[in-house]
Amino acid sequence: MHFSSDNWAGAHPQVSAALAGAAAGSDPAYGSGAIDARVAETFSRIFEREVAVFFVATGTAANALALSLHSKPGTVAFCHREAHVIEDECGAPEFFADAQRLCPVDGAEGRIDPESLRAAVERYAPKFVHSGRPGPVTITQATEAGTVYGLDHIAAIGDVARAHGLALHMDGARFANALVSLDATPAEMTWKRGVDMVSFGGTKNGCWCAEAVVLFDATMTEEMGFRRKRAAQLFSKSRFIAAQFEAYFRDGLWLETARHANAMAARLAGHFRAARDARLGWEPQANEVFAILDKAAAEKAQAAGATFYPWHAPHGFGGTIGDGEELYRFVTSFATTAEEVDRFGAVIGA
Amino acid sequence: MHFSSDNWAGAHPQVSAALAGAAAGSDPAYGSGAIDARVAETFSRIFEREVAVFFVATGTAANALALSLHSKPGTVAFCHREAHVIEDECGAPEFFADAQRLCPVDGAEGRIDPESLRAAVERYAPKFVHSGRPGPVTITQATEAGTVYGLDHIAAIGDVARAHGLALHMDGARFANALVSLDATPAEMTWKRGVDMVSFGGTKNGCWCAEAVVLFDATMTEEMGFRRKRAAQLFSKSRFIAAQFEAYFRDGLWLETARHANAMAARLAGHFRAARDARLGWEPQANEVFAILDKAAAEKAQAAGATFYPWHAPHGFGGTIGDGEELYRFVTSFATTAEEVDRFGAVIGA
Amino acid sequence: MHFSSDNWAGAHPQVSAALAGAAAGSDPAYGSGAIDARVAETFSRIFEREVAVFFVATGTAANALALSLHSKPGTVAFCHREAHVIEDECGAPEFFADAQRLCPVDGAEGRIDPESLRAAVERYAPKFVHSGRPGPVTITQATEAGTVYGLDHIAAIGDVARAHGLALHMDGARFANALVSLDATPAEMTWKRGVDMVSFGGTKNGCWCAEAVVLFDATMTEEMGFRRKRAAQLFSKSRFIAAQFEAYFRDGLWLETARHANAMAARLAGHFRAARDARLGWEPQANEVFAILDKAAAEKAQAAGATFYPWHAPHGFGGTIGDGEELYRFVTSFATTAEEVDRFGAVIGA
Amino acid sequence: MHFSSDNWAGAHPQVSAALAGAAAGSDPAYGSGAIDARVAETFSRIFEREVAVFFVATGTAANALALSLHSKPGTVAFCHREAHVIEDECGAPEFFADAQRLCPVDGAEGRIDPESLRAAVERYAPKFVHSGRPGPVTITQATEAGTVYGLDHIAAIGDVARAHGLALHMDGARFANALVSLDATPAEMTWKRGVDMVSFGGTKNGCWCAEAVVLFDATMTEEMGFRRKRAAQLFSKSRFIAAQFEAYFRDGLWLETARHANAMAARLAGHFRAARDARLGWEPQANEVFAILDKAAAEKAQAAGATFYPWHAPHGFGGTIGDGEELYRFVTSFATTAEEVDRFGAVIGA
Repeated sequence: MHFSSDNWAGAHPQVSAALAGAAAGSDPAYGSGAIDARVAETFSRIFEREVAVFFVATGTAANALALSLHSKPGTVAFCHREAHVIEDECGAPEFFADAQRLCPVDGAEGRIDPESLRAAVERYAPKFVHSGRPGPVTITQATEAGTVYGLDHIAAIGDVARAHGLALHMDGARFANALVSLDATPAEMTWKRGVDMVSFGGTKNGCWCAEAVVLFDATMTEEMGFRRKRAAQLFSKSRFIAAQFEAYFRDGLWLETARHANAMAARLAGHFRAARDARLGWEPQANEVFAILDKAAAEKAQAAGATFYPWHAPHGFGGTIGDGEELYRFVTSFATTAEEVDRFGAVIGA
Repeated sequence: MHFSSDNWAGAHPQVSAALAGAAAGSDPAYGSGAIDARVAETFSRIFEREVAVFFVATGTAANALALSLHSKPGTVAFCHREAHVIEDECGAPEFFADAQRLCPVDGAEGRIDPESLRAAVERYAPKFVHSGRPGPVTITQATEAGTVYGLDHIAAIGDVARAHGLALHMDGARFANALVSLDATPAEMTWKRGVDMVSFGGTKNGCWCAEAVVLFDATMTEEMGFRRKRAAQLFSKSRFIAAQFEAYFRDGLWLETARHANAMAARLAGHFRAARDARLGWEPQANEVFAILDKAAAEKAQAAGATFYPWHAPHGFGGTIGDGEELYRFVTSFATTAEEVDRFGAVIGA
Repeated sequence: MHFSSDNWAGAHPQVSAALAGAAAGSDPAYGSGAIDARVAETFSRIFEREVAVFFVATGTAANALALSLHSKPGTVAFCHREAHVIEDECGAPEFFADAQRLCPVDGAEGRIDPESLRAAVERYAPKFVHSGRPGPVTITQATEAGTVYGLDHIAAIGDVARAHGLALHMDGARFANALVSLDATPAEMTWKRGVDMVSFGGTKNGCWCAEAVVLFDATMTEEMGFRRKRAAQLFSKSRFIAAQFEAYFRDGLWLETARHANAMAARLAGHFRAARDARLGWEPQANEVFAILDKAAAEKAQAAGATFYPWHAPHGFGGTIGDGEELYRFVTSFATTAEEVDRFGAVIGA
Repeated sequence: MHFSSDNWAGAHPQVSAALAGAAAGSDPAYGSGAIDARVAETFSRIFEREVAVFFVATGTAANALALSLHSKPGTVAFCHREAHVIEDECGAPEFFADAQRLCPVDGAEGRIDPESLRAAVERYAPKFVHSGRPGPVTITQATEAGTVYGLDHIAAIGDVARAHGLALHMDGARFANALVSLDATPAEMTWKRGVDMVSFGGTKNGCWCAEAVVLFDATMTEEMGFRRKRAAQLFSKSRFIAAQFEAYFRDGLWLETARHANAMAARLAGHFRAARDARLGWEPQANEVFAILDKAAAEKAQAAGATFYPWHAPHGFGGTIGDGEELYRFVTSFATTAEEVDRFGAVIGA
């Protein structure tokens, strides 16, 4: 009954086996080997266009490097008020972008409101040096609230960015979970809606450590190469990432694991709907479920072996959290089983 | 016949197996899990004192983070003229230390000369803001020239650092190769000789990706924790590093692989001594061999399938490189076989 | 009728004369000359304790250097939502502090609410590396809204800072205007209420260029010296700043010019109260007046030679701004005359 | 007998008078006023082309901002081994350029040798991320050794820079002294020889504080505007710099003061040639004289009221400094008198 985070899981057996298989033999280092080349082609195939792919160590690195790419002195980047980049990355985006500021933007259920974004961007008059200048926009898909941006919503954000000449980045730490939730293609969810850069995460969805920056603008390749190296994010034995991604993409494993995680979240949500001592905070759309529990019930569940964390109510939350209650987050993964979900359901009286 | 670098090898089978074994089950993320705790204890046992250990993605990250720890605005760090930090890290040490400068110091065969270091440090008068202020000293063990600092040499460097209140860092990308070369203990080669911080590398010696900063001063633990996270170097599924290190240390595997790599280098050196078309540049002490080859001979070897790189003659090199000749570097690893070394020997007419 | 800003004025005749008087003769550079020493003593006398004084080029430099002094990787500084540091300094505070973030805090009429500050600080759990860690707090006195923090209010902010081990900085670009408004002493308005560092501005109140960082903690002197130099803010002919401050403080000139500017603001406010086409936004307490004008009336005033800017309504503004109306800022200075204030009053129908 | 530095002098009376004259009246802030506009035009006239001018607080700021303009992550800038940027600016160039490295280049008498520069630049292979990438080149005119680059020498440096696509910067802290020494025009000494950016110094030559970045590439104007503001180098009452420059350029005052300073240096050199207890280190070409004195003689001169500093022998210095002797630097300025030079000559037995 581990619902603390999808990064508490280990690696999927097929990823693990692929890694073991890649361990033998000599291969050029720093990403110039054979497996790396194959995986780069796979990324281009998946996104239906030529893309530049850069493996990095963490999702934070992917976000921070991507956002830095369009940063200059005095630049302000725009993110949701509760985005991972501003809440959970210890200032890495500012650091990698040489002190770029993050401007929080409002929006309900973890999604940036396009009109709020437009207003935030338009506070920066062109060439007015005092206030700084607008820079990249970043959205998180799936969001930190377990919701998913619809394709039109992404396009609306993309329109605001494009109208002001700003790059649009997608933090895809849970890219696959959002993708299968929308039943869309990677191209439809990204560059066809105005996205320029993706932090493509595989770690939470079955890999050990497989994060990549994907750029749709190939002219940025040389620049990103230097930035990644300066950030100490260029792996020498790069094939150990490539081998994970190779297994991840083979036969659609990544979509299968994401569908499983989302299904487990839906099953858990069903238990909350039926529970005596708990209720859903809002409808989940990917692999995170937010629920309000009586604190005593939460403690009982924890005593029974369940792990999960309390959470801040997000911006625009319309519900009420009573005395003696608290909002909690529950995350499912490729490794979550129906059995443990149901066992948890029993504990909370569903 | 792959002698390009020890990072062209994959992972040792025992490391690979351990990683596969760790893939199942749920475990707390970000380094707070069970395997991480066990490995942290192992590090303390190996170094014969309580140490703080921080896993990071690359050797460059370990170096840059360690050097940043004692950095302030206007700080100058001291390294060998040909150190990896100044030659091969794309400015990461300056970046992580918020623009700290690296001051190159002379010394023969890749080792800093203690008197040159003293002179370099003493150019910085206390409180004289114009020149900046002296910061950490870093040495590479084994060096980039394939040599090893003797214990007394380390102590002499440590004395200079200590006399000026400066921290001493050891870049141990090839820590194990140096250790077995000296037949010393980790404690003898580090803190007992004045070293405060180690970049402890496992990647080149049999792991996929296993690099760590080791601090002997536990009061720096909290500070390093924030620095690592800000540098986007905190792995979520940290146990994938821990599992590699666990296998690496089990039953002395790390010493065994290092001894093997060094032995292969010695064997290769023997071939150069006997060769018709090549000669040793200088005596190797770890797992890197530098040799001067007739360019035609080098091309012939490459045509036969050997991989290796040309190299700059190091500071203080007393030999001569004739017309039509060039200096090359040959690196051996845990995966190098006697058979391929001997096959190469045959190609160069040994 | 120039009300655009107090930095549109030139220099006070006494400051100008002092500067001319200091032009002759040779004197040690970089702040070690005789005038600098005298002025440093004057600062200590004025603040009734030993202080460390650092001249810098701009108020932005003073703010950014002071805030950087207590910054570490991942630090978050706290300022009012409309503070100059976050609205008008193009990211200098983040840059000087090596990417420190600024966290905006709410509060009516330009003043930070102590309870909002406490809540903002307490979102950062000790040692939780993901969110970053709390750093210095900064308040602006007088505020950007032309109001002044009362002494108890400063003490309340100081209490929150002290309780969490955070340094408290005061942006005193209009220090003198606030001081005479409160009829307090510099000591009462700063360190006796918990302030650790002051950006002490003389430029807006009669100097050409006279800004200083004042530190109440002398142990920071060496560190600030290096930081100022690295920021390219150490003047060689430092006495040209010192000479301005010498005249500024002589015979209480600085208090006199501030009282004059405040009196002119009060006179202007009187006109707004009496005006046909305008009304006060809120009560001014220093040398800035905010008023709501019919846009046509504003244009008529501008056509008559008045200069002033539109302004954003501040957080917590309770008034209404009708269609065809706009909020404007009017700033007075040592050089503003009663005649021009009254002439403006006539234009707006007072 | 003050020969410590040209920045020990105050301001020239005409500069001082102009500043006093500009003190009255209201004028737009931040460089958009009338005097600023006039001075910008004067710069363009003096350089015989449209230039962009940015006033800053210090020569260090001018250097650091100019060098930052062509900096990217992993960039290495090239300067003379003894340049002010690397010896005397406390890391400001690295800081302003977000951690750019400075690579020291050899050359006799303070001037970069073009072939050494070419070799230094060519160590950076295109797109090889490990080593970093080459960035701007900076030369100092007049040099820190009191010598001057000839026009052909500048052109040779410019050719190397241009061949590798690198920008060329001139640190002109003593621009006027070099200019009159060469009897050249500003255009001939800069952009006609391949210089892209100048740190134009007026402070050492008669102003209080008058430093500017001059850009010959107007497309960089917007970028530099944001960089200057972020570096806290945008003066609010900018006309106080402009007024100094206006007097500085009026009727060729700047050339006159520079000729005077150079003449005083030549007079002093004559005394050293004739002296009993001292000898010239090498021939001066601007307003700095380096001489070897018996230490006892130096102490006697200091006891008689002379001020001057010991100096490091520069790279490539061919002379000998005996036991009991030391190399000293003597700097003259617009304010140095023939009388004090001759008085000093008498002290050293000329």
